[in-house]
Amino acid sequence: MNKFEKAQQILQEINGDGWLIVCNEDNDIHSRYLLGVGSHALHAIFIATDGNHKVLPVAMEANMVKNSLKKKGLDAEVIPFNSESEFMEKLKLIIKKPKIALDFGENIFEKDTTSYADYIPFGTHLALQKLAPNTEFISAAPIIYELRSVKSTEELKDLRNVCKATIELLEKVPDMTKVGITERELMAKLEYEYAKVGKPAFSAIVGTGENSADPHHNTSNKKINPGPLLIDTGLQIDEMCSDITWTYWVGSNPSREFIDAYNALYEAKKIANKYYTDGTPNRLPAMKCREYLAEKGYDHEKLFFHGLGHALDFEAHGVGPRVSSKSPENTLLKENMVYTNEPGLYWIGKWGVRLEDDIIIGKEKCEQVTYVPKDPIVM
Amino acid sequence: MNKFEKAQQILQEINGDGWLIVCNEDNDIHSRYLLGVGSHALHAIFIATDGNHKVLPVAMEANMVKNSLKKKGLDAEVIPFNSESEFMEKLKLIIKKPKIALDFGENIFEKDTTSYADYIPFGTHLALQKLAPNTEFISAAPIIYELRSVKSTEELKDLRNVCKATIELLEKVPDMTKVGITERELMAKLEYEYAKVGKPAFSAIVGTGENSADPHHNTSNKKINPGPLLIDTGLQIDEMCSDITWTYWVGSNPSREFIDAYNALYEAKKIANKYYTDGTPNRLPAMKCREYLAEKGYDHEKLFFHGLGHALDFEAHGVGPRVSSKSPENTLLKENMVYTNEPGLYWIGKWGVRLEDDIIIGKEKCEQVTYVPKDPIVM
Repeated sequence: MNKFEKAQQILQEINGDGWLIVCNEDNDIHSRYLLGVGSHALHAIFIATDGNHKVLPVAMEANMVKNSLKKKGLDAEVIPFNSESEFMEKLKLIIKKPKIALDFGENIFEKDTTSYADYIPFGTHLALQKLAPNTEFISAAPIIYELRSVKSTEELKDLRNVCKATIELLEKVPDMTKVGITERELMAKLEYEYAKVGKPAFSAIVGTGENSADPHHNTSNKKINPGPLLIDTGLQIDEMCSDITWTYWVGSNPSREFIDAYNALYEAKKIANKYYTDGTPNRLPAMKCREYLAEKGYDHEKLFFHGLGHALDFEAHGVGPRVSSKSPENTLLKENMVYTNEPGLYWIGKWGVRLEDDIIIGKEKCEQVTYVPKDPIVM
Repeated sequence: MNKFEKAQQILQEINGDGWLIVCNEDNDIHSRYLLGVGSHALHAIFIATDGNHKVLPVAMEANMVKNSLKKKGLDAEVIPFNSESEFMEKLKLIIKKPKIALDFGENIFEKDTTSYADYIPFGTHLALQKLAPNTEFISAAPIIYELRSVKSTEELKDLRNVCKATIELLEKVPDMTKVGITERELMAKLEYEYAKVGKPAFSAIVGTGENSADPHHNTSNKKINPGPLLIDTGLQIDEMCSDITWTYWVGSNPSREFIDAYNALYEAKKIANKYYTDGTPNRLPAMKCREYLAEKGYDHEKLFFHGLGHALDFEAHGVGPRVSSKSPENTLLKENMVYTNEPGLYWIGKWGVRLEDDIIIGKEKCEQVTYVPKDPIVM
């Protein structure tokens, strides 16, 4: 079953007449997800419950969209437009239906949020409501959740493939790193290799010294100095992203504190892995990981100030509730979901370590698709 | 005057109490534009008319945000949060004000659209309205327009700088291109150089042969073959992006048709330049360009199926009405706006040429910040 067919099936369940994506450039990831190609202009995609799917690209992109759909074996009528008013007229005819799903979330900032579906801008929603005053617009969250949270065999194959390619590069980092090179130059080297086979899943985090203590550090022009070097990076090939963090040591003698933190995180991650199984509450791996860090004497509430993992799919921050000690008890992991396992310890303004693997939730036990060196790589 | 101060000034004019950006990851460009750093999580920025600016980052990003604001010399209270509910409580206190500007557009798909301001997702807007039921939310379009459409001296300096760096790379493309290299490999080489000094303003378009006829072609694994090679690429350093297209010829003998099209576009571009001046209707350069192409015997309506130019700023597709023969007569260019000038001719399924320069609108005459080789580079 392809994506269009799967979406149709869910549309039937929620009594919708279609799923509409109205998108400007790349402001809704589901455009590229469905078309297989990135648009740089206004366009609309209508997945119809009755199978009469339609795509409205700007004239200059019509050929590109047609070719991509053909390549993916997807069937949709491509209706090009030349001006916003023409777009509006054509769209109006398509959306004159009782009930249409749109990419918006509900209960944002609250429990049971569907923020992962929150894409359509407020002004665009307003314009659609004006264009189709009798249409009821419902949230496409159930469609997006079903399509993206539990992975197909094909997607898991893509995951293993993209993780393998990423790991091979992380193993080469010591060869890429010369004295005097900047964080940004190292990132450029990694992403150069990425661009040959796919694209960066997100802008790589390369943090030297005190920058390793900023979990979301923006890679800078700072020269790589002796001490910890944290690299958090991901690649996208086909349908899946990798997201892996290795922390290296630059210079000859890793400090005792660094080795201790590294080892503790390595073990904590292994312990958490035991709970990445079908039917387990999302909070459990995170709680077990924190228990171990506490045993080892780390003030984890202060030093490990983020969740343990997030879903991974077509995007690096994928669809699904986080793996966090704060997750509600009744949020459960499911077989063939894909999550990161990424504990960290950070001494702000000083240094930090994070180790991150990508995990497929299994029936009895998980599949760890990536690995982190047991002992820190010294370079 | 820094960005915060300029925004305050416009807020006073529109009688707003503040400008609120609520953003998840990078789904509103104005977050990075204001903070100088990219967030990977939920956060809020409140630019207050009274000067008491506030930023609400997730705890793990607080340090990163503080450092960036300090580096930019911007003053704002940074209030970290640990959970969505804490975020909500803290935000509630801040936005209990009569009138707040939010990033949404009006008249989307219509004339006088402010779609360039349309960022806040529908569900997030809904949640904010629930959080502050007595607050009137108005569009931040006037703030965004004022901040981004006419450039400051500093921004123009950044533009010249980033264009120079991009051009130097385009000049080196013949050295980078070997027989058998794929489009994607060539893109990787370009973007490797970009990553050392900045970041790609957008994913480079590298189109060989028939792919050159797709104006928004997604760079592929196709090997570069003899014939036209179109490269449309941009770099971002500091506050400004470049956006330049050169079309090369691979192989020994450019076809007569290619040379003719190239020359016609080169001249058409030069003619259009004369009208990139203060007070001129946006449509005029485009109309003059098309007149020339018609004179040369090209069926421009069929072969040149996109606008002549777009605004350029912190984003490659910047804020401001397009330069297009379809623009309304009373839409005028203004001194120190920055636009692309990019006529193209495309024979779909066969080949295409586009030549693109970046232009600063001048009082009497424009400043062409980039150049395109007078004769096609043969390699």
